[in-house]
Amino acid sequence: MARPRPLSGYPEYSPAERLVEQQVLDGLRRVFELHGFASVETRAVEPLSQLLRKGEIDKEVYVVRRLHEAADTEVGDDTLALHFDLTVPFARYVVENSGTLAFPFKRYQIQKVWRGERPQEGRYREFCQADIDVVGRDVLPAHYEAEMAVVMSEALSALPLPALRMQVNNRKLIEGFFRGVGADDPAAVMQAVDKLDKVGAEGVRTLLTGPAGLSAEQADACLALAAISGCDPSVLERVRALGVHDPLLEEGIADLGAVLEATAGLASERFSLVADLSIARGLDYYTGTVYEMRMEGFESLGSICSGGRYDALASDGKTVYPGVGISFGVTRALAPLLGRGVLTASRSTPTCVLVALGDDAARAAAGRTAAALRARGIAAEVSPDAAKFGKQIRFAERRGIPFVWFAGAGEDGGDQVRDIRSGEQVGADPTVWEPPAADLRPSVVRAG
Amino acid sequence: MARPRPLSGYPEYSPAERLVEQQVLDGLRRVFELHGFASVETRAVEPLSQLLRKGEIDKEVYVVRRLHEAADTEVGDDTLALHFDLTVPFARYVVENSGTLAFPFKRYQIQKVWRGERPQEGRYREFCQADIDVVGRDVLPAHYEAEMAVVMSEALSALPLPALRMQVNNRKLIEGFFRGVGADDPAAVMQAVDKLDKVGAEGVRTLLTGPAGLSAEQADACLALAAISGCDPSVLERVRALGVHDPLLEEGIADLGAVLEATAGLASERFSLVADLSIARGLDYYTGTVYEMRMEGFESLGSICSGGRYDALASDGKTVYPGVGISFGVTRALAPLLGRGVLTASRSTPTCVLVALGDDAARAAAGRTAAALRARGIAAEVSPDAAKFGKQIRFAERRGIPFVWFAGAGEDGGDQVRDIRSGEQVGADPTVWEPPAADLRPSVVRAG
Repeated sequence: MARPRPLSGYPEYSPAERLVEQQVLDGLRRVFELHGFASVETRAVEPLSQLLRKGEIDKEVYVVRRLHEAADTEVGDDTLALHFDLTVPFARYVVENSGTLAFPFKRYQIQKVWRGERPQEGRYREFCQADIDVVGRDVLPAHYEAEMAVVMSEALSALPLPALRMQVNNRKLIEGFFRGVGADDPAAVMQAVDKLDKVGAEGVRTLLTGPAGLSAEQADACLALAAISGCDPSVLERVRALGVHDPLLEEGIADLGAVLEATAGLASERFSLVADLSIARGLDYYTGTVYEMRMEGFESLGSICSGGRYDALASDGKTVYPGVGISFGVTRALAPLLGRGVLTASRSTPTCVLVALGDDAARAAAGRTAAALRARGIAAEVSPDAAKFGKQIRFAERRGIPFVWFAGAGEDGGDQVRDIRSGEQVGADPTVWEPPAADLRPSVVRAG
Repeated sequence: MARPRPLSGYPEYSPAERLVEQQVLDGLRRVFELHGFASVETRAVEPLSQLLRKGEIDKEVYVVRRLHEAADTEVGDDTLALHFDLTVPFARYVVENSGTLAFPFKRYQIQKVWRGERPQEGRYREFCQADIDVVGRDVLPAHYEAEMAVVMSEALSALPLPALRMQVNNRKLIEGFFRGVGADDPAAVMQAVDKLDKVGAEGVRTLLTGPAGLSAEQADACLALAAISGCDPSVLERVRALGVHDPLLEEGIADLGAVLEATAGLASERFSLVADLSIARGLDYYTGTVYEMRMEGFESLGSICSGGRYDALASDGKTVYPGVGISFGVTRALAPLLGRGVLTASRSTPTCVLVALGDDAARAAAGRTAAALRARGIAAEVSPDAAKFGKQIRFAERRGIPFVWFAGAGEDGGDQVRDIRSGEQVGADPTVWEPPAADLRPSVVRAG
C-alpha cells in the first residue's frame, strides 16, 4: 500500500504517547475505584431514538450500517449510530438494568465517543471520555453533588496536568435569582448569561434587554450576579447583598454553600475550586450543581471537564432516576499536551532490562535470565539477535530502555548489568537484582 | 422511555461481570508488558480501501456515516467503516509510522472490533480482542514465532479460565509436504484439509481426490499428515516417517521443532501445547507458524485465540514488514463463561469498607475516616444516609462489600469494624487497620 495518511479528527498516539495516556487512565481509575465507583462499559452503538431524544446534536451523529445495507437511505428509530457521549448510554443502561442494579449506583466509564464535528485542537471526531456518575432511584441526596467535585478533583490533581481550576455554580440559585428579579423566562436569561465568555457583558446586556425581555435594572442585577466568583463562602454573602429574594434562590445558596464547605480542603498549587456565578452549562437538563474546569495555559480548549446534577435524566415512566456526574475529556486535555510536547514518556516500551546476546546459542540461557527478572515484576526482553554489543546497546537506547544485561561479563564469570545512561556496570544476579523504583516502569516527563 | 431491550450481538456486562473482565484485561496487560510489548490503540474506523484489501469479509463490515450524509448511497475507497479485527489497522499503523517506530516493534492492542455477523454464543457484533504482534523491517527472526506462543500461554494461563489447549503447526511444513507428495495446487489441498473438523476424513478425501486433483495415494498421505499430533518432538519423526521429501518441508520441520523446544516448559494442569498437523488457518497470508487455541468444555466456541507468522502483511511498496502475532478473543471466551455463571466476582463494587453513619451530622467525620482508609489504598465510601444500621449493613450486603465501619462503637469510644460475613466486630483505627489481602479488591470466583 502507499503510505497512508492520518485521518483528520482521529488522533492516534505513538507508543510513548500511549504510555502517557495509559498512566492518565490508570490514575483516574485508581481514584474512582478507591471511592467505590464500579466500572461500566456500554456498547458503542445506540438506536437513533435514544441518541436524538435531546434533539440538539443530530448533525454530529455517525450512523452505522452493514456494508451490503449501505444503499438503504431510510433512517428510522432503530437505525444504529455511534454514541456521542457516555451519559445517554449510561441512562439507557440504568433503565435497562434497573431490576438488578443496587441504588444509589456509583459508576465510572472510560470509553471512546464519536462526533462528526469539524476537527481542531481539542475537538476530535473520535475521543476518549472519563465519566463518573451517581444515580439514585426516586431520590438522590444532595451530598453527592459535593462528592463528585471531590472525587474528580482528587483524580485530576494526581495527574501530570497543568494547574486546573474547577468552577461550580448551582442551577437552582441562578434560576431562583432570575425569577426573583422578575424574569418571565428564566431559561432565556440563563441562555443569554451563558454567552458571557463569547459576547461580553455588553453583548449579554443587549440579549437580556432584547429577546429575554428584561428591564435595564433587571439586566444589571443578572450581570452583577454573573460577575461574582470566589473560593470561599463569602461569595454567597455577595449574592445575598444583591437583595433578590426567592425560595429557589435560597435552596440554591444553601446547596452551593454545602459544596464549597465539603470541598474547602481541596485547594493546592495544582488545583483550585471557585464558585463562579456565571456558569450555567448549555444543556437544559441540569437541575442543581453544575461544574466546569479549565486548564492553565490551555484556556482556548474551553472546559475540559464538566457536568452537573440532573433530576430526571433517566426514567422508565414509572420510576425516575436522578443523578449527578462529571465527564473529563481525556483526549481533549491530553492530545494538545502530547502534541505540543508538554508531556512525554521516559521510554517508548515497558521494557526495563534488555538481556544482551553474546551468540545465538545463548538465547535459551538469556531467556531464563529474562524470565527470572519478569518473575519479580521487572519487564525484560532478550535482544533480537547476537549483533555486536554496541548495536544491542543502541537497540536499548532508541527505546529508552535503561538497563542492558550481560551474561558472564564479570571477572568472576558472573552476570553484569549496565545502566546505559550513566555507563555504570555492576555485578548482578537476575534472581535478586532490582532496578531503582523510578526505573521499574516508564514515567511521565513534563517539559519545562 | 420504555424499558429498552438488549441489542442482539452487543453484549453488555453487569458491574460484577465487568469486574471479571477488568481482571482478565489487567492480567493480559501485565504479562504483555513484562515481555516488553508496548500498548497501541488505533482509531475505530478505517477507509474501506484498507479493510477490503483481503476481499473476504465485505458483507461483515459496518460503514460509518454522518447522519446528514446518510442519504448518500455511494460507497467508495474513502468511505469509513469500523475495523473488524486489530491486524489490518495495526499493519496500516506500522506503515504510516514506519519513520518513527523502532523495529523489531512489539505491541499489544486490546480494543473492541465490529462484525455484522449473525449473533450466537461466542459470535458477537461488537467484541473485544487482545492482540500481540512483533513486526520487523525487511526481516524478522524465526525465534519470535516461539516467543508469541510463550507470551500468550503465560498470559492466558494466569487467567481464571478453563484448561486451554494451544495447537501449533507450520505453513511451510504443510505446504512443503503437499508439494512433496506431488500436489499441483498446495493451496487447494490446504483448504480441503482445513475442513477436517467440519466434514471429517472421508469428506476431506472426497475434496482432495476431486477439486484438489490428488490421487488416492496422495490424498492418503495428506490425511496421514493431518492425523499427526503430539506434545513432543517425536511428532516430527512421525512426519518424516511418511517418507515425503521437499526443501520447504524440511524448513518447516526445523521451525516447528524450534517452537516445540522453546515451549517445552509451558505445560501445566491448565495449559497444554500440541503440534497438530491438521491446523492450517483459513486466511491465506500466513507463511510460517500458525496457532489456534481451544478451551476445555467450550469446544463448540471453536478457536478462542489464533494467529500466525506473515511475511508480508504490511508493505509500502519499497519496504516489507514481516510479522508474527496472536489474537485472543476476549469476549468470545469470556461472555459464555459469564453468561453460564462459570465466573463471577466476589462483589459488584470496588468498595472494601462502607463507613456507616450514626446521624447526618457525622458525615464530615465519616468522610475523614473513609479518606484515611483510601490514603492507604483501601477503597472506602460513606453510607448514602443515616438509616438504621441494619439497613446500612444490607446496603453493604447487596453489593458484597465485606466490611462496615462504625465510628465510636467501642466501649472505649473508639471505632469498630465489622466483617459482615462472619459478624465479627473488632476495634480499629482507620490510619492503621488493614483488611485481609484477599478482601482488598474484588476477586474472581469460579463456580464448581
